[in-house]
Amino acid sequence: MADIIPVDDPADPRLSDFTDLTDVELRRRREPAEGLFVAEGEKVIRRAAQAGYPMRSMLLSEKWLPVMRDVLDQVRAPAYVMSPEAAEQVTGYHVHRGALASMGRTPLPEPGALLATARRVVIMEAVNDHTNIGAVFRSAAALGMDGVLLSPSCADPLYRRSVKVSMGAVFSVPYARLGTWPGGLKPVREAGFRLLAFTPDEDAVPLDDIGAHRLPRVALLLGAEGDGLSARAMRAADDRVRIPMAHGVDSLNVGAAAAVAFYAATRT
Amino acid sequence: MADIIPVDDPADPRLSDFTDLTDVELRRRREPAEGLFVAEGEKVIRRAAQAGYPMRSMLLSEKWLPVMRDVLDQVRAPAYVMSPEAAEQVTGYHVHRGALASMGRTPLPEPGALLATARRVVIMEAVNDHTNIGAVFRSAAALGMDGVLLSPSCADPLYRRSVKVSMGAVFSVPYARLGTWPGGLKPVREAGFRLLAFTPDEDAVPLDDIGAHRLPRVALLLGAEGDGLSARAMRAADDRVRIPMAHGVDSLNVGAAAAVAFYAATRT
Repeated sequence: MADIIPVDDPADPRLSDFTDLTDVELRRRREPAEGLFVAEGEKVIRRAAQAGYPMRSMLLSEKWLPVMRDVLDQVRAPAYVMSPEAAEQVTGYHVHRGALASMGRTPLPEPGALLATARRVVIMEAVNDHTNIGAVFRSAAALGMDGVLLSPSCADPLYRRSVKVSMGAVFSVPYARLGTWPGGLKPVREAGFRLLAFTPDEDAVPLDDIGAHRLPRVALLLGAEGDGLSARAMRAADDRVRIPMAHGVDSLNVGAAAAVAFYAATRT
Repeated sequence: MADIIPVDDPADPRLSDFTDLTDVELRRRREPAEGLFVAEGEKVIRRAAQAGYPMRSMLLSEKWLPVMRDVLDQVRAPAYVMSPEAAEQVTGYHVHRGALASMGRTPLPEPGALLATARRVVIMEAVNDHTNIGAVFRSAAALGMDGVLLSPSCADPLYRRSVKVSMGAVFSVPYARLGTWPGGLKPVREAGFRLLAFTPDEDAVPLDDIGAHRLPRVALLLGAEGDGLSARAMRAADDRVRIPMAHGVDSLNVGAAAAVAFYAATRT
Protein backbone atom coordinates (compact mmCIF):
# COMPACT_ATOMS: atom_id res chain seq x y z
CA MET A 1 0.00 0.00 0.00
CA ALA A 2 1.22 3.47 -0.91
CA ASP A 3 2.26 5.99 1.74
CA ILE A 4 0.06 9.05 1.43
CA ILE A 5 2.28 12.05 2.11
CA PRO A 6 0.96 15.63 2.13
CA VAL A 7 3.54 18.06 0.73
CA ASP A 8 3.33 21.87 0.67
CA ASP A 9 6.73 22.92 -0.58
CA PRO A 10 7.15 22.76 -4.38
CA ALA A 11 10.93 22.65 -3.82
CA ASP A 12 10.70 19.43 -1.78
CA PRO A 13 13.46 17.20 -3.20
CA ARG A 14 11.22 14.12 -3.02
CA LEU A 15 9.29 15.61 -5.97
CA SER A 16 12.28 15.68 -8.30
CA ASP A 17 10.82 13.06 -10.67
CA PHE A 18 8.11 15.60 -11.51
CA THR A 19 10.06 18.84 -11.89
CA ASP A 20 10.06 20.94 -15.07
CA LEU A 21 7.86 18.61 -17.08
CA THR A 22 7.35 21.28 -19.73
CA ASP A 23 11.07 21.44 -20.50
CA VAL A 24 11.07 18.87 -23.30
CA GLU A 25 14.83 18.92 -23.89
CA LEU A 26 15.62 18.48 -20.23
CA ARG A 27 13.11 15.67 -19.71
CA ARG A 28 14.24 13.96 -22.89
CA ARG A 29 17.73 13.64 -21.42
CA ARG A 30 16.81 13.04 -17.81
CA GLU A 31 14.12 10.39 -18.08
CA PRO A 32 16.01 7.64 -19.91
CA ALA A 33 19.18 8.44 -17.90
CA GLU A 34 17.32 8.13 -14.60
CA GLY A 35 15.31 5.13 -15.74
CA LEU A 36 11.90 6.72 -15.33
CA PHE A 37 8.95 7.95 -17.34
CA VAL A 38 5.86 9.93 -16.42
CA ALA A 39 2.31 8.65 -16.82
CA GLU A 40 -0.44 11.26 -16.70
CA GLY A 41 -4.09 10.80 -15.81
CA GLU A 42 -6.07 7.99 -14.30
CA LYS A 43 -6.41 5.74 -17.36
CA VAL A 44 -2.81 5.93 -18.44
CA ILE A 45 -1.48 5.40 -14.89
CA ARG A 46 -3.70 2.35 -14.49
CA ARG A 47 -2.51 0.92 -17.79
CA ALA A 48 1.15 1.49 -16.93
CA ALA A 49 0.69 -0.25 -13.58
CA GLN A 50 -1.23 -3.13 -15.14
CA ALA A 51 1.49 -3.55 -17.75
CA GLY A 52 3.91 -4.23 -14.89
CA TYR A 53 5.95 -1.05 -14.77
CA PRO A 54 7.06 -0.42 -11.17
CA MET A 55 5.72 2.81 -9.67
CA ARG A 56 8.37 5.10 -8.14
CA SER A 57 5.98 7.73 -6.81
CA MET A 58 2.76 9.56 -7.51
CA LEU A 59 1.87 13.26 -7.39
CA LEU A 60 -1.81 14.06 -7.13
CA SER A 61 -4.32 16.47 -5.70
CA GLU A 62 -6.54 15.48 -2.81
CA LYS A 63 -9.68 15.03 -4.85
CA TRP A 64 -7.98 12.34 -6.95
CA LEU A 65 -7.15 10.17 -3.93
CA PRO A 66 -10.47 8.27 -3.93
CA VAL A 67 -10.31 7.80 -7.71
CA MET A 68 -6.83 6.29 -7.52
CA ARG A 69 -7.46 4.43 -4.25
CA ASP A 70 -7.36 0.91 -5.72
CA VAL A 71 -4.13 1.64 -7.59
CA LEU A 72 -2.54 3.12 -4.46
CA ASP A 73 -3.59 0.06 -2.48
CA GLN A 74 -1.55 -2.14 -4.76
CA VAL A 75 1.76 -0.30 -4.90
CA ARG A 76 4.52 0.37 -2.39
CA ALA A 77 5.39 3.88 -3.53
CA PRO A 78 4.96 7.27 -1.91
CA ALA A 79 1.95 9.28 -3.10
CA TYR A 80 2.59 13.00 -2.67
CA VAL A 81 -0.59 14.98 -2.19
CA MET A 82 -0.43 18.65 -3.14
CA SER A 83 -2.75 21.49 -4.02
CA PRO A 84 -3.13 21.96 -7.79
CA GLU A 85 -1.41 25.34 -7.45
CA ALA A 86 1.66 23.92 -5.72
CA ALA A 87 1.78 21.00 -8.18
CA GLU A 88 1.82 23.49 -11.04
CA GLN A 89 4.92 25.08 -9.51
CA VAL A 90 6.64 21.70 -9.55
CA THR A 91 5.67 20.57 -13.02
CA GLY A 92 5.42 23.90 -14.83
CA TYR A 93 1.86 23.43 -16.03
CA HIS A 94 -1.64 22.92 -14.76
CA VAL A 95 -2.17 19.16 -14.51
CA HIS A 96 -5.70 18.86 -15.89
CA ARG A 97 -5.77 15.15 -15.38
CA GLY A 98 -5.15 15.51 -11.66
CA ALA A 99 -2.62 12.73 -11.16
CA LEU A 100 0.91 11.98 -12.33
CA ALA A 101 2.92 8.86 -11.71
CA SER A 102 6.64 8.36 -12.08
CA MET A 103 7.20 4.84 -13.33
CA GLY A 104 10.41 2.83 -13.60
CA ARG A 105 11.50 1.72 -17.04
CA THR A 106 12.00 -1.95 -17.71
CA PRO A 107 14.54 -3.38 -20.18
CA LEU A 108 13.38 -3.37 -23.81
CA PRO A 109 13.33 -6.70 -25.61
CA GLU A 110 15.97 -7.40 -28.23
CA PRO A 111 14.62 -7.02 -31.78
CA GLY A 112 15.30 -10.73 -32.36
CA ALA A 113 13.13 -11.76 -29.44
CA LEU A 114 10.29 -9.57 -30.65
CA LEU A 115 10.59 -10.86 -34.22
CA ALA A 116 10.60 -14.50 -33.13
CA THR A 117 6.88 -14.49 -32.34
CA ALA A 118 5.57 -11.56 -34.42
CA ARG A 119 3.91 -11.75 -37.83
CA ARG A 120 3.10 -8.08 -38.47
CA VAL A 121 5.43 -5.34 -37.34
CA VAL A 122 5.82 -1.65 -38.06
CA ILE A 123 9.27 -0.10 -38.34
CA MET A 124 9.57 3.66 -37.90
CA GLU A 125 12.54 5.61 -39.23
CA ALA A 126 13.50 8.90 -37.54
CA VAL A 127 10.00 9.70 -36.29
CA ASN A 128 10.85 12.47 -33.86
CA ASP A 129 7.49 13.96 -33.10
CA HIS A 130 6.13 12.62 -29.80
CA THR A 131 2.53 13.10 -30.92
CA ASN A 132 3.09 11.07 -34.08
CA ILE A 133 4.92 8.31 -32.18
CA GLY A 134 1.99 8.07 -29.77
CA ALA A 135 -0.57 8.09 -32.59
CA VAL A 136 1.23 5.31 -34.45
CA PHE A 137 1.42 3.16 -31.30
CA ARG A 138 -2.27 3.67 -30.58
CA SER A 139 -3.24 2.56 -34.08
CA ALA A 140 -0.71 -0.29 -34.09
CA ALA A 141 -2.17 -1.68 -30.88
CA ALA A 142 -5.80 -1.10 -31.87
CA LEU A 143 -5.41 -2.70 -35.28
CA GLY A 144 -3.53 -5.74 -34.01
CA MET A 145 0.07 -5.19 -35.07
CA ASP A 146 2.39 -7.52 -33.14
CA GLY A 147 5.25 -5.16 -32.49
CA VAL A 148 7.06 -1.92 -33.25
CA LEU A 149 10.71 -1.48 -34.18
CA LEU A 150 12.35 1.93 -33.94
CA SER A 151 15.33 3.24 -35.87
CA PRO A 152 18.04 4.63 -33.56
CA SER A 153 16.90 8.24 -34.15
CA CYS A 154 13.22 7.80 -33.31
CA ALA A 155 11.90 9.69 -30.30
CA ASP A 156 11.12 7.98 -27.00
CA PRO A 157 7.72 6.24 -26.90
CA LEU A 158 7.71 6.64 -23.11
CA TYR A 159 7.97 10.40 -23.22
CA ARG A 160 4.90 11.84 -21.45
CA ARG A 161 3.28 13.24 -24.58
CA SER A 162 3.74 9.99 -26.56
CA VAL A 163 2.31 7.93 -23.72
CA LYS A 164 -0.70 10.24 -23.46
CA VAL A 165 -1.46 10.38 -27.18
CA SER A 166 -1.11 6.60 -27.38
CA MET A 167 -3.66 6.29 -24.53
CA GLY A 168 -1.23 3.86 -22.97
CA ALA A 169 -0.86 1.71 -26.11
CA VAL A 170 2.92 2.05 -25.73
CA PHE A 171 2.51 -0.37 -22.82
CA SER A 172 0.51 -2.98 -24.70
CA VAL A 173 2.33 -3.44 -27.98
CA PRO A 174 5.93 -4.66 -27.57
CA TYR A 175 8.67 -2.53 -29.08
CA ALA A 176 12.41 -2.63 -29.54
CA ARG A 177 15.14 -0.37 -30.87
CA LEU A 178 17.31 -1.37 -33.80
CA GLY A 179 20.98 -0.83 -32.97
CA THR A 180 22.07 0.16 -36.47
CA TRP A 181 20.30 1.73 -39.43
CA PRO A 182 19.51 0.59 -41.99
CA GLY A 183 21.71 -2.42 -41.09
CA GLY A 184 19.22 -3.42 -38.43
CA LEU A 185 16.73 -4.25 -41.19
CA LYS A 186 18.78 -7.23 -42.36
CA PRO A 187 17.85 -9.54 -39.47
CA VAL A 188 14.22 -8.56 -40.01
CA ARG A 189 14.34 -9.85 -43.56
CA GLU A 190 16.31 -12.92 -42.43
CA ALA A 191 13.50 -13.67 -39.99
CA GLY A 192 11.21 -14.06 -43.01
CA PHE A 193 9.58 -10.64 -43.06
CA ARG A 194 8.76 -8.93 -46.34
CA LEU A 195 9.81 -5.28 -45.95
CA LEU A 196 7.33 -2.79 -47.40
CA ALA A 197 8.53 0.83 -47.60
CA PHE A 198 5.68 3.36 -47.65
CA THR A 199 6.11 6.36 -49.92
CA PRO A 200 3.79 8.73 -51.78
CA ASP A 201 5.86 8.21 -54.99
CA GLU A 202 3.70 7.62 -58.03
CA ASP A 203 5.85 4.74 -59.26
CA ALA A 204 5.47 2.68 -56.09
CA VAL A 205 3.06 -0.26 -56.04
CA PRO A 206 -0.51 0.57 -54.88
CA LEU A 207 -1.16 -0.86 -51.42
CA ASP A 208 -4.07 -3.00 -52.59
CA ASP A 209 -1.94 -4.74 -55.21
CA ILE A 210 0.56 -5.92 -52.58
CA GLY A 211 -1.99 -7.99 -50.65
CA ALA A 212 -0.13 -7.36 -47.40
CA HIS A 213 -2.69 -9.33 -45.39
CA ARG A 214 -1.83 -12.49 -47.34
CA LEU A 215 1.93 -12.32 -46.66
CA PRO A 216 3.02 -14.71 -43.92
CA ARG A 217 5.24 -12.09 -42.25
CA VAL A 218 5.30 -8.43 -43.09
CA ALA A 219 7.17 -5.34 -41.83
CA LEU A 220 5.74 -1.92 -42.68
CA LEU A 221 8.37 0.84 -42.91
CA LEU A 222 7.19 4.37 -42.18
CA GLY A 223 9.20 7.59 -42.27
CA ALA A 224 8.66 10.90 -40.53
CA GLU A 225 6.04 13.47 -41.50
CA GLY A 226 7.50 15.68 -44.20
CA ASP A 227 10.75 13.87 -44.99
CA GLY A 228 9.38 10.36 -45.37
CA LEU A 229 11.75 7.40 -45.54
CA SER A 230 15.40 7.95 -46.44
CA ALA A 231 16.73 6.65 -49.75
CA ARG A 232 18.84 4.04 -47.98
CA ALA A 233 15.87 2.75 -45.99
CA MET A 234 13.95 2.58 -49.26
CA ARG A 235 16.75 0.57 -50.90
CA ALA A 236 16.88 -1.84 -47.98
CA ALA A 237 13.19 -2.69 -48.43
CA ASP A 238 11.69 -5.38 -50.66
CA ASP A 239 8.91 -3.26 -52.15
CA ARG A 240 7.99 0.39 -52.36
CA VAL A 241 4.31 0.77 -51.61
CA ARG A 242 1.98 3.75 -51.92
CA ILE A 243 -1.48 4.54 -50.67
CA PRO A 244 -3.14 6.01 -53.78
CA MET A 245 -3.90 9.74 -53.41
CA ALA A 246 -6.84 11.71 -54.82
CA HIS A 247 -7.89 15.39 -55.16
CA GLY A 248 -4.28 16.44 -55.81
CA VAL A 249 -3.27 15.77 -52.19
CA ASP A 250 0.46 15.01 -51.69
CA SER A 251 0.24 12.66 -48.76
CA LEU A 252 -1.59 11.52 -45.67
CA ASN A 253 -0.26 12.49 -42.28
CA VAL A 254 1.87 9.74 -40.76
CA GLY A 255 -0.83 8.72 -38.26
CA ALA A 256 -3.45 8.30 -40.97
CA ALA A 257 -1.03 6.51 -43.32
CA ALA A 258 -0.06 4.16 -40.50
CA ALA A 259 -3.69 3.38 -39.68
CA VAL A 260 -4.45 2.55 -43.32
CA ALA A 261 -1.31 0.42 -43.65
CA PHE A 262 -2.05 -1.48 -40.43
CA TYR A 263 -5.63 -2.10 -41.47
CA ALA A 264 -4.55 -3.40 -44.87
CA ALA A 265 -1.91 -5.67 -43.32
CA THR A 266 -4.07 -7.14 -40.56
CA ARG A 267 -7.52 -7.62 -42.07
CA THR A 268 -8.50 -11.22 -42.41
CA MET B 1 -1.59 42.92 -58.89
CA ALA B 2 -1.52 43.41 -55.12
CA ASP B 3 -0.62 46.77 -53.58
CA ILE B 4 2.45 46.29 -51.39
CA ILE B 5 1.94 48.50 -48.35
CA PRO B 6 4.54 48.80 -45.57
CA VAL B 7 2.89 49.18 -42.16
CA ASP B 8 4.61 49.92 -38.84
CA ASP B 9 1.74 50.42 -36.44
CA PRO B 10 0.21 47.19 -35.08
CA ALA B 11 -2.94 49.19 -34.28
CA ASP B 12 -3.47 50.17 -37.95
CA PRO B 13 -7.18 49.51 -38.58
CA ARG B 14 -6.45 48.04 -42.02
CA LEU B 15 -5.02 45.01 -40.20
CA SER B 16 -8.26 44.17 -38.40
CA ASP B 17 -8.75 40.88 -40.29
CA PHE B 18 -5.61 39.62 -38.53
CA THR B 19 -6.09 40.83 -34.96
CA ASP B 20 -6.15 38.50 -31.94
CA LEU B 21 -5.79 35.28 -33.92
CA THR B 22 -5.04 33.34 -30.74
CA ASP B 23 -8.42 34.20 -29.22
CA VAL B 24 -10.28 31.14 -30.48
CA GLU B 25 -13.67 32.14 -29.11
CA LEU B 26 -13.48 35.61 -30.62
CA ARG B 27 -12.30 34.41 -34.03
CA ARG B 28 -14.90 31.65 -34.05
CA ARG B 29 -17.64 34.31 -33.84
CA ARG B 30 -16.02 36.99 -35.96
CA GLU B 31 -14.84 35.05 -38.99
CA PRO B 32 -18.15 33.57 -40.20
CA ALA B 33 -19.98 36.81 -39.28
CA GLU B 34 -17.53 38.90 -41.30
CA GLY B 35 -17.33 36.39 -44.14
CA LEU B 36 -13.62 35.73 -43.89
CA PHE B 37 -11.15 33.06 -42.93
CA VAL B 38 -7.40 33.06 -42.42
CA ALA B 39 -4.97 30.98 -44.45
CA GLU B 40 -1.49 30.56 -42.99
CA GLY B 41 1.74 29.77 -44.78
CA GLU B 42 2.76 29.64 -48.41
CA LYS B 43 1.24 26.28 -49.38
CA VAL B 44 -2.12 26.84 -47.76
CA ILE B 45 -2.45 30.40 -49.13
CA ARG B 46 -1.65 29.14 -52.63
CA ARG B 47 -4.22 26.39 -52.35
CA ALA B 48 -6.91 28.77 -51.08
CA ALA B 49 -6.25 31.14 -53.99
CA GLN B 50 -6.22 28.30 -56.52
CA ALA B 51 -9.50 27.02 -55.13
CA GLY B 52 -11.05 30.36 -56.07
CA TYR B 53 -11.45 32.03 -52.68
CA PRO B 54 -11.10 35.81 -53.13
CA MET B 55 -8.21 37.34 -51.21
CA ARG B 56 -9.11 40.29 -48.97
CA SER B 57 -5.59 41.11 -47.83
CA MET B 58 -2.28 39.61 -46.88
CA LEU B 59 0.04 40.19 -43.94
CA LEU B 60 3.63 39.13 -44.40
CA SER B 61 7.20 39.94 -43.53
CA GLU B 62 9.54 41.37 -46.12
CA LYS B 63 11.50 38.18 -46.68
CA TRP B 64 8.31 36.41 -47.80
CA LEU B 65 7.60 38.91 -50.57
CA PRO B 66 9.70 37.12 -53.21
CA VAL B 67 8.26 33.72 -52.22
CA MET B 68 4.69 34.96 -52.60
CA ARG B 69 5.41 37.17 -55.62
CA ASP B 70 3.47 35.10 -58.17
CA VAL B 71 0.43 34.92 -55.88
CA LEU B 72 0.58 38.67 -55.25
CA ASP B 73 0.81 39.30 -59.00
CA GLN B 74 -2.52 37.59 -59.50
CA VAL B 75 -4.66 39.24 -56.84
CA ARG B 76 -6.05 42.73 -56.35
CA ALA B 77 -5.71 42.89 -52.60
CA PRO B 78 -3.49 44.93 -50.31
CA ALA B 79 -0.42 43.12 -48.99
CA TYR B 80 0.67 44.61 -45.68
CA VAL B 81 4.37 44.21 -45.02
CA MET B 82 5.47 44.28 -41.39
CA SER B 83 8.37 43.20 -39.25
CA PRO B 84 7.79 39.81 -37.58
CA GLU B 85 7.77 41.61 -34.19
CA ALA B 86 5.04 44.04 -35.19
CA ALA B 87 3.03 41.26 -36.83
CA GLU B 88 3.20 39.32 -33.57
CA GLN B 89 1.59 42.28 -31.82
CA VAL B 90 -1.29 42.17 -34.29
CA THR B 91 -1.91 38.43 -34.30
CA GLY B 92 -0.88 37.51 -30.76
CA TYR B 93 1.69 34.89 -31.80
CA HIS B 94 4.87 34.49 -33.75
CA VAL B 95 3.88 33.62 -37.30
CA HIS B 96 6.40 30.88 -38.08
CA ARG B 97 5.09 30.45 -41.58
CA GLY B 98 5.79 34.08 -42.45
CA ALA B 99 2.62 34.91 -44.35
CA LEU B 100 -1.08 35.14 -43.55
CA ALA B 101 -3.92 35.79 -45.96
CA SER B 102 -7.45 36.85 -45.15
CA MET B 103 -9.73 35.17 -47.66
CA GLY B 104 -13.40 35.79 -48.39
CA ARG B 105 -15.80 32.92 -47.79
CA THR B 106 -17.92 31.68 -50.65
CA PRO B 107 -21.43 30.21 -50.26
CA LEU B 108 -21.47 26.54 -49.27
CA PRO B 109 -23.32 24.16 -51.59
CA GLU B 110 -26.65 22.76 -50.47
CA PRO B 111 -26.37 19.15 -49.25
CA GLY B 112 -28.63 18.07 -52.12
CA ALA B 113 -26.32 19.55 -54.73
CA LEU B 114 -23.32 17.82 -53.19
CA LEU B 115 -25.15 14.48 -52.94
CA ALA B 116 -26.32 14.60 -56.55
CA THR B 117 -22.87 13.80 -57.93
CA ALA B 118 -21.18 12.09 -54.97
CA ARG B 119 -20.78 8.36 -54.38
CA ARG B 120 -18.77 8.30 -51.16
CA VAL B 121 -19.35 10.88 -48.45
CA VAL B 122 -18.40 11.25 -44.80
CA ILE B 123 -20.83 12.76 -42.32
CA MET B 124 -19.43 14.14 -39.07
CA GLU B 125 -21.57 14.62 -35.99
CA ALA B 126 -20.57 17.25 -33.42
CA VAL B 127 -16.86 17.10 -34.19
CA ASN B 128 -15.74 20.24 -32.37
CA ASP B 129 -12.02 19.87 -32.32
CA HIS B 130 -10.42 21.93 -35.09
CA THR B 131 -7.44 19.59 -35.33
CA ASN B 132 -9.68 16.57 -35.80
CA ILE B 133 -11.84 18.35 -38.40
CA GLY B 134 -8.71 19.23 -40.34
CA ALA B 135 -7.29 15.71 -40.07
CA VAL B 136 -10.53 14.16 -41.31
CA PHE B 137 -10.64 16.53 -44.30
CA ARG B 138 -7.03 15.78 -45.19
CA SER B 139 -7.67 12.03 -45.20
CA ALA B 140 -11.03 12.41 -46.97
CA ALA B 141 -9.39 14.35 -49.79
CA ALA B 142 -6.31 12.12 -49.97
CA LEU B 143 -8.29 8.89 -50.05
CA GLY B 144 -10.79 10.09 -52.64
CA MET B 145 -13.99 10.73 -50.72
CA ASP B 146 -16.36 12.86 -52.81
CA GLY B 147 -17.71 15.14 -50.11
CA VAL B 148 -18.16 15.95 -46.43
CA LEU B 149 -21.42 16.71 -44.63
CA LEU B 150 -21.37 18.37 -41.22
CA SER B 151 -23.98 18.18 -38.49
CA PRO B 152 -25.08 21.63 -37.30
CA SER B 153 -22.81 21.48 -34.23
CA CYS B 154 -19.55 20.61 -36.01
CA ALA B 155 -16.77 23.17 -35.81
CA ASP B 156 -15.83 25.38 -38.75
CA PRO B 157 -13.55 23.69 -41.33
CA LEU B 158 -12.28 27.13 -42.36
CA TYR B 159 -11.00 28.01 -38.90
CA ARG B 160 -7.24 28.64 -39.19
CA ARG B 161 -6.19 25.54 -37.28
CA SER B 162 -8.48 23.24 -39.31
CA VAL B 163 -7.26 24.70 -42.58
CA LYS B 164 -3.64 24.24 -41.50
CA VAL B 165 -4.00 20.66 -40.25
CA SER B 166 -5.90 19.76 -43.42
CA MET B 167 -2.99 21.17 -45.48
CA GLY B 168 -5.64 22.98 -47.49
CA ALA B 169 -7.74 19.87 -48.15
CA VAL B 170 -10.77 21.82 -46.85
CA PHE B 171 -10.56 23.67 -50.18
CA SER B 172 -10.43 20.59 -52.39
CA VAL B 173 -13.15 18.32 -51.07
CA PRO B 174 -16.64 19.88 -51.25
CA TYR B 175 -18.59 20.14 -48.01
CA ALA B 176 -22.00 21.24 -46.84
CA ARG B 177 -23.84 21.69 -43.56
CA LEU B 178 -26.98 19.75 -42.73
CA GLY B 179 -29.68 22.11 -41.48
CA THR B 180 -31.23 19.69 -39.00
CA TRP B 181 -29.95 16.72 -37.04
CA PRO B 182 -30.48 13.86 -37.38
CA GLY B 183 -33.35 14.86 -39.71
CA GLY B 184 -30.82 15.97 -42.31
CA LEU B 185 -29.81 12.33 -42.76
CA LYS B 186 -33.14 11.45 -44.37
CA PRO B 187 -32.42 13.11 -47.73
CA VAL B 188 -29.04 11.37 -47.75
CA ARG B 189 -30.72 7.98 -47.56
CA GLU B 190 -33.34 9.09 -50.08
CA ALA B 191 -30.50 9.92 -52.47
CA GLY B 192 -29.57 6.23 -52.40
CA PHE B 193 -26.77 6.29 -49.83
CA ARG B 194 -26.32 3.46 -47.36
CA LEU B 195 -25.64 5.07 -43.96
CA LEU B 196 -22.89 3.34 -41.98
CA ALA B 197 -22.54 4.48 -38.35
CA PHE B 198 -19.04 3.86 -36.94
CA THR B 199 -18.85 2.72 -33.33
CA PRO B 200 -16.43 0.66 -31.24
CA ASP B 201 -19.38 -1.43 -29.92
CA GLU B 202 -18.63 -5.13 -29.96
CA ASP B 203 -22.04 -6.01 -31.42
CA ALA B 204 -21.61 -3.84 -34.52
CA VAL B 205 -20.70 -5.44 -37.85
CA PRO B 206 -16.96 -5.69 -38.58
CA LEU B 207 -15.96 -3.22 -41.31
CA ASP B 208 -14.65 -5.93 -43.63
CA ASP B 209 -17.98 -7.76 -43.57
CA ILE B 210 -19.84 -4.70 -44.84
CA GLY B 211 -17.92 -4.51 -48.13
CA ALA B 212 -18.32 -0.73 -48.21
CA HIS B 213 -16.31 -0.46 -51.44
CA ARG B 214 -18.92 -2.55 -53.27
CA LEU B 215 -21.90 -0.38 -52.25
CA PRO B 216 -23.01 1.94 -55.04
CA ARG B 217 -23.37 4.93 -52.69
CA VAL B 218 -22.17 5.04 -49.12
CA ALA B 219 -22.18 7.62 -46.31
CA LEU B 220 -19.79 7.08 -43.39
CA LEU B 221 -21.00 8.58 -40.09
CA LEU B 222 -18.33 9.55 -37.59
CA GLY B 223 -18.78 11.02 -34.12
CA ALA B 224 -16.45 13.09 -31.98
CA GLU B 225 -13.42 11.75 -30.12
CA GLY B 226 -14.59 10.46 -26.76
CA ASP B 227 -18.36 10.67 -27.12
CA GLY B 228 -18.72 8.99 -30.49
CA LEU B 229 -22.03 9.12 -32.35
CA SER B 230 -25.22 9.94 -30.45
CA ALA B 231 -27.87 7.26 -30.01
CA ARG B 232 -30.22 9.09 -32.34
CA ALA B 233 -27.63 9.34 -35.08
CA MET B 234 -26.98 5.63 -34.60
CA ARG B 235 -30.70 4.87 -34.95
CA ALA B 236 -30.94 6.94 -38.11
CA ALA B 237 -28.24 4.85 -39.80
CA ASP B 238 -28.68 1.64 -41.79
CA ASP B 239 -25.84 -0.32 -40.19
CA ARG B 240 -23.64 -0.03 -37.16
CA VAL B 241 -20.07 -0.79 -38.18
CA ARG B 242 -16.92 -1.34 -36.13
CA ILE B 243 -13.25 -1.47 -36.90
CA PRO B 244 -12.12 -4.56 -34.97
CA MET B 245 -9.85 -3.69 -32.02
CA ALA B 246 -6.91 -5.68 -30.62
CA HIS B 247 -4.60 -5.57 -27.55
CA GLY B 248 -7.49 -4.43 -25.31
CA VAL B 249 -7.58 -0.98 -26.94
CA ASP B 250 -10.96 0.82 -26.70
CA SER B 251 -10.88 2.78 -29.92
CA LEU B 252 -8.84 4.51 -32.58
CA ASN B 253 -8.61 8.26 -32.57
CA VAL B 254 -11.12 9.85 -34.92
CA GLY B 255 -8.48 10.73 -37.51
CA ALA B 256 -7.18 7.16 -37.67
CA ALA B 257 -10.68 5.67 -37.69
CA ALA B 258 -11.66 8.02 -40.51
CA ALA B 259 -8.59 7.09 -42.57
CA VAL B 260 -9.35 3.37 -42.20
CA ALA B 261 -13.03 3.87 -43.04
CA PHE B 262 -12.22 5.99 -46.11
CA TYR B 263 -9.68 3.46 -47.33
CA ALA B 264 -12.13 0.61 -46.92
CA ALA B 265 -14.88 2.54 -48.72
CA THR B 266 -12.81 3.76 -51.65
CA ARG B 267 -10.45 0.91 -52.54
CA THR B 268 -11.15 -0.60 -55.88
